[in-house]
Amino acid sequence: MLLPEPIQNLINALERLPGIGPKSASRLAFYFLRADESLSAELAESLTGLKDKIAFCSECFNITDAGRQRCEICENPKRDASIICVLEDALDVLALERIGAFQGKYHVLQGVLNPIEGIGPDDLKIRPLVERVARGGVREVILATNPSMEGDATALYIGQRLAALGVSVTRLARGLPMGGDLEYADQSTLLRALQGRQEMS
Amino acid sequence: MLLPEPIQNLINALERLPGIGPKSASRLAFYFLRADESLSAELAESLTGLKDKIAFCSECFNITDAGRQRCEICENPKRDASIICVLEDALDVLALERIGAFQGKYHVLQGVLNPIEGIGPDDLKIRPLVERVARGGVREVILATNPSMEGDATALYIGQRLAALGVSVTRLARGLPMGGDLEYADQSTLLRALQGRQEMS
Repeated sequence: MLLPEPIQNLINALERLPGIGPKSASRLAFYFLRADESLSAELAESLTGLKDKIAFCSECFNITDAGRQRCEICENPKRDASIICVLEDALDVLALERIGAFQGKYHVLQGVLNPIEGIGPDDLKIRPLVERVARGGVREVILATNPSMEGDATALYIGQRLAALGVSVTRLARGLPMGGDLEYADQSTLLRALQGRQEMS
Repeated sequence: MLLPEPIQNLINALERLPGIGPKSASRLAFYFLRADESLSAELAESLTGLKDKIAFCSECFNITDAGRQRCEICENPKRDASIICVLEDALDVLALERIGAFQGKYHVLQGVLNPIEGIGPDDLKIRPLVERVARGGVREVILATNPSMEGDATALYIGQRLAALGVSVTRLARGLPMGGDLEYADQSTLLRALQGRQEMS
């Protein structure tokens, strides 16, 4: 049986999203049919011209409203410009902001080094970071890329690029996550937790 | 930090979808930002006026293209009209069609009885089913609602309504699913499998 074309088109579009397979796509498509019309209308509207409605901060490359030169955080004089936290993408900024403990500024790389996918240093916002640090006034750069192969390689590369600039370069701590279980921790996490053990205060 | 409004709107719309929590919603929203413009454009287009583009078959209540009176299956003279498979929704029709073993016709209830949510017999396409069977020419009705409390209650109710019409009323078999493991089967499934055991041929 063939589905009506409008539904099939919707399923095809939904299937292109990450984490949504054929089954979830059909389930979602049929949900739209049953649900209030406002649901599909709102989603359609917020998707239309999405990229034109947002811009990237010219300093930290975080997302911001279209027409803005710099994002709210970069423009906030209360934020400490001497400490820069380097992140893979804008979602990581959200995660950091949520804990509310970081008062410095950010730098969003917009990706990680990934030779297999052909993503090299020039595809990321690494050069603007080096220039930003070279302009002075920065005392610490926290490399907060993800604890993955790509994240580590990217941090290593950036660390080398920043080495000559006389700033302190740090990396987020590795170890057991809160609520985790020693027994279920993978070997690499447990090894890092052991190597990074700290004196009890 | 506040997200740019267009992104926040998109996240809010995505969060209204079933199975998509706040985290998946933000991840998806940022995916749209990075991905090719065609992704959001296609999805927006297929969502716009979705409900106006499709219709329900006047005989079996399966979905079909707008402007059509009867669906492809109901109009297909090769399908056996003497056997009707009763399903909860149009997705179930897809599932049955996929196995390719059923050559009869369908009847989509568009839901199940659910007293807690206030869904009674008149909210479903039960009356049209009874009328359809009463018009004659039907010898078997397969009640293929889901093997759940609501599905069973709905099948029981429909079975009683059809009792006087002299048709054979059947229900899909219960038992262990293929590839399942006896050890992990829930008690109720195992009980059904035992009760429904069959002579080896």
